[in-house]
Amino acid sequence: MEAMILLDSLQAALVETCHLKPGARILLGLSGGPDSLCLLHALARMGWDVAAAHFDHSLRPESAEEAQMVAGIAANLGVACVIECGDVPAYARGKGLSIEEAARTLRYGFLFAQARRCGAQAVAVAHTADDQVETVLMHLLRGAGLAGLKGMSMRAVLPERDTDMPLVRPLLSTWRCEVEAYCQEAQLHPLQDPSNQNVAFFRNRLRHELIPYLESYNPNIRQGIWRSAQALAGDHDTLQALVETTWAQCLESTGQGFVILDLEFLRAQGEGMQRSLLRRAITVLRPALRDVGFDALRRAQGFVQHPSRSAQLDLLDGLTLSMEQDDLILCEEKAALPFPWPCLEPGYVAQLDVPGRVALPDGWELCAGWGVAGKIEGDPWQTSLSLEALRLPLEVRIAQPGERWQPLGMAVGSIKLSDFWINEGLPRRARAGWPLVCSGDQVAWLPGFRPAQFCRLVGKKQRVVLIRLVPPAGFENLAV
Amino acid sequence: MEAMILLDSLQAALVETCHLKPGARILLGLSGGPDSLCLLHALARMGWDVAAAHFDHSLRPESAEEAQMVAGIAANLGVACVIECGDVPAYARGKGLSIEEAARTLRYGFLFAQARRCGAQAVAVAHTADDQVETVLMHLLRGAGLAGLKGMSMRAVLPERDTDMPLVRPLLSTWRCEVEAYCQEAQLHPLQDPSNQNVAFFRNRLRHELIPYLESYNPNIRQGIWRSAQALAGDHDTLQALVETTWAQCLESTGQGFVILDLEFLRAQGEGMQRSLLRRAITVLRPALRDVGFDALRRAQGFVQHPSRSAQLDLLDGLTLSMEQDDLILCEEKAALPFPWPCLEPGYVAQLDVPGRVALPDGWELCAGWGVAGKIEGDPWQTSLSLEALRLPLEVRIAQPGERWQPLGMAVGSIKLSDFWINEGLPRRARAGWPLVCSGDQVAWLPGFRPAQFCRLVGKKQRVVLIRLVPPAGFENLAV
Repeated sequence: MEAMILLDSLQAALVETCHLKPGARILLGLSGGPDSLCLLHALARMGWDVAAAHFDHSLRPESAEEAQMVAGIAANLGVACVIECGDVPAYARGKGLSIEEAARTLRYGFLFAQARRCGAQAVAVAHTADDQVETVLMHLLRGAGLAGLKGMSMRAVLPERDTDMPLVRPLLSTWRCEVEAYCQEAQLHPLQDPSNQNVAFFRNRLRHELIPYLESYNPNIRQGIWRSAQALAGDHDTLQALVETTWAQCLESTGQGFVILDLEFLRAQGEGMQRSLLRRAITVLRPALRDVGFDALRRAQGFVQHPSRSAQLDLLDGLTLSMEQDDLILCEEKAALPFPWPCLEPGYVAQLDVPGRVALPDGWELCAGWGVAGKIEGDPWQTSLSLEALRLPLEVRIAQPGERWQPLGMAVGSIKLSDFWINEGLPRRARAGWPLVCSGDQVAWLPGFRPAQFCRLVGKKQRVVLIRLVPPAGFENLAV
Repeated sequence: MEAMILLDSLQAALVETCHLKPGARILLGLSGGPDSLCLLHALARMGWDVAAAHFDHSLRPESAEEAQMVAGIAANLGVACVIECGDVPAYARGKGLSIEEAARTLRYGFLFAQARRCGAQAVAVAHTADDQVETVLMHLLRGAGLAGLKGMSMRAVLPERDTDMPLVRPLLSTWRCEVEAYCQEAQLHPLQDPSNQNVAFFRNRLRHELIPYLESYNPNIRQGIWRSAQALAGDHDTLQALVETTWAQCLESTGQGFVILDLEFLRAQGEGMQRSLLRRAITVLRPALRDVGFDALRRAQGFVQHPSRSAQLDLLDGLTLSMEQDDLILCEEKAALPFPWPCLEPGYVAQLDVPGRVALPDGWELCAGWGVAGKIEGDPWQTSLSLEALRLPLEVRIAQPGERWQPLGMAVGSIKLSDFWINEGLPRRARAGWPLVCSGDQVAWLPGFRPAQFCRLVGKKQRVVLIRLVPPAGFENLAV
């Protein structure tokens, strides 16, 4: 009777929530404990095409013998079981992982490889509703957000394991006591892993001590937490869909080691969405990072809201945040960021004849010619300078340390080029190679910005030198 | 030193998160305990315009004397304190509330009334970060969703208290130990409420037993849960904004005791959003319901997904769900739902002459006239019937129990009107008063649907009776 209820709810979970196709194979991770044995038996009984795989962690001396027993139990049910043995402690040492993490990585690696090998539609594991409750509590105890508190999913594609093959957990709404009753009714004899009783393991202490203690507060605490997880999972899905849509609007560009976001758009979002988008950006560069801490997100958020444009923030794991104009840049130290500006090498000097042209690196070009004073406004990439104020030929070079100039509109005195660029918001990395057009040792034109005060136009029919900085072919978005 | 840190973080909270204006008054709920006394002192010290209000719950014999002491402490700080005394046990009995609920309702009612009276910009209460952690745990223990697990807000407008005046909790990121250190440094002498030590109260047991126990799992559990709440609050805000946008698209109409949603739109949403929209609909009709249970939402969701259109679901608290065509209707039993159809009283009979007209109730009208056979298609509200098949004058009446007819296109036999209407999806409540146009005792035309088979048109130049059902003036959306 109990068994029939379990089978009904399992069948519904397999088809409706796990979206499994009845004809196609399922690869089941079989530890030999009550949960996976119950799932194996139930799947076989309902006529699903199931293959089993057992991973021998070699953490206890009897594990090899147990692996043979597990394969025997599967064979008795008419199911083939592949065994693989891994050296978990060695892997843990080599990768700097805990034993649990190393065991999980190796086990899932094996299960997914085996599933691909035998043409399965999914990897199934036998987590129960009790496992779900324990997982949620573990996340709560370390202060997780929605992604943790929602617990495990009945069906999930985990890109780090396989980009297509889903992991399914069809027993996730079945309680452990129902599984045990099923095993008894079906006269199954699961292996008992003695380490499940060892309260030195965090999860076991949760199971055997914390949850019973919480039940003294609310006898239905397990059902309550399970329901919370269900509700949060729905909210998490809704939110993730929204984050993806918003992400597409917020992302400017991405490449090897960098992500560039639209700063103004990001600032216009609510706090929660800001954090979600920042987390999303970090995930692009650090996909393996299981959990981006709330504090890191808050620091990033503080940086985004802060008006200072010159600073940069060491965020986490070698990633830094910086701002350029309307962009927020998250990048690794050596990322090859897009460089949408001209760039001269240190020591570069060239002569610019009038008329004439100078080819700059990367396909940029400066062109000079004669003309008569007229209005060229709105394009900072060309200018007209008073001929009589200039010493020809002009010279093209980069700025010297501490060099000053007197930009158009500054009636007296001068300003350091570096301060001028800070005021104008030119990113630091663009400054060193910026081309200056000079007359003698004075800056006559700063392409992208302004001419100098000394060569401004005064009369209407004055003879002028026209100069233009031409970007490389196909170049777009030239902006300071 | 400690005090300065508290003041800095409090000032930031008041301005940046609680959005309080420095010049305007704040009404502080003053119990006289360490938290509210610290907040009073700090607000006064920083020059905020603060008034205090103390609610005497009369639950302990010494409460009246304590109220005077509280007012005295406030007066020493130069702050006026209004006292009100309420009979909590009587209110609890009268309203069927727990003592805690009754105390909260009366206390907040008093605070908001007092805040309005003294022209305050907000009611402030002194919940601390520890209170936040306790609140989140209480919600977890009963299996709450995002709305509960996000905890309290630093600033909230609670429509059930006041539609404009916010409730602010500026100490919500300050820990109780910081408050106590402040009190000591400032030589404040808070009252100690002995009931705070009584572990018979759920919250006290949480504070004195559960949280210390959880700290044996993670010594930073309180900080962790506080962070979780912060993260969830951001996600909750993001989600709520999305729910409101989606709600506006999903809502068909609402009125006294009913909400009508677009069923197809609702079905196209993800599970989480479906639940959010259903919860939102329930909130329209039951705004005082503090918490819509997950199970009720799941039952509603099951109903929405289920294809049966005839059933209705008793959802909760006197609300039922039903479906009509593409509408999902949530309503109270006696709600006056929109009735966009004609409706005749029981026993109604009228003669329809040709040519002639019959005025039906509520401004509907049937008009009949002569004509020659031609095509009138696409409008089920008018028809042309073969003259020679009819017995004139025609009769207008409602259906008799079990009455059958032979609709156009049914070559042999007949069908019960009730079955025909079920097939066509006519809502149950529209059927009883539906007008039939009859020839003798046979249904000749069912307005909104079809003519009968026996009076179909056969020749091209045949003489016909034209009939039209005209809706009331200004009537829109006539649809079956």
